[in-house]
Amino acid sequence: MKRFDKHIFICENQRPEGHPRGCCKDKGGSDVKELFKKRLKELGLNSSVRANTAGCLDACEYGVTVVVYPEQVWYGGVKIEDVEEIIQSHILNNKPVERLFIKDARFNKDE
Amino acid sequence: MKRFDKHIFICENQRPEGHPRGCCKDKGGSDVKELFKKRLKELGLNSSVRANTAGCLDACEYGVTVVVYPEQVWYGGVKIEDVEEIIQSHILNNKPVERLFIKDARFNKDE
Repeated sequence: MKRFDKHIFICENQRPEGHPRGCCKDKGGSDVKELFKKRLKELGLNSSVRANTAGCLDACEYGVTVVVYPEQVWYGGVKIEDVEEIIQSHILNNKPVERLFIKDARFNKDE
Repeated sequence: MKRFDKHIFICENQRPEGHPRGCCKDKGGSDVKELFKKRLKELGLNSSVRANTAGCLDACEYGVTVVVYPEQVWYGGVKIEDVEEIIQSHILNNKPVERLFIKDARFNKDE
């Protein structure tokens, strides 16, 4: 057993307005992080699963980026509407949500 | 193969001055993160290993906290003098640096 069964990192990086790569914070990263934290707590999972602020995960072009360890599953363009599905399917049932995978071949190569 | 062979998260959380738990930023978290990034780049590892800013990792009492995935190895009280050893031993040779492990039994239980 490790400290956390799942460790969810959500990018909340903020870049100056107009930066060509954009940033996850402006796309809703903080709202996504807060909803993960709220739901994990409500479900009594917050001692074994942590939703964590992350700085830039270098996947800016895919929108709000989320990476789940220890599997290293990469989600892109995550919206608050997607949080419950990630928790119910991936976190609780170990079935990553493929429709939200970052499609770039550098990510999720094993999936 | 995953996007990163190793993903190093360094806490740079900042709390208001005088907060009882303290914070990793005031203890040097950002200097540790920057040195990881600099050395990984110098060693040509920065495409396969990422040093990443993290928000609070909930291990504030151990000083600057670093967690390395996919193994989920937890280091506490990391100083800039420790960065090279973590890179050479753990990142390059898969030998985690036991002297820097967080000693609390909730962490590093498999080690």
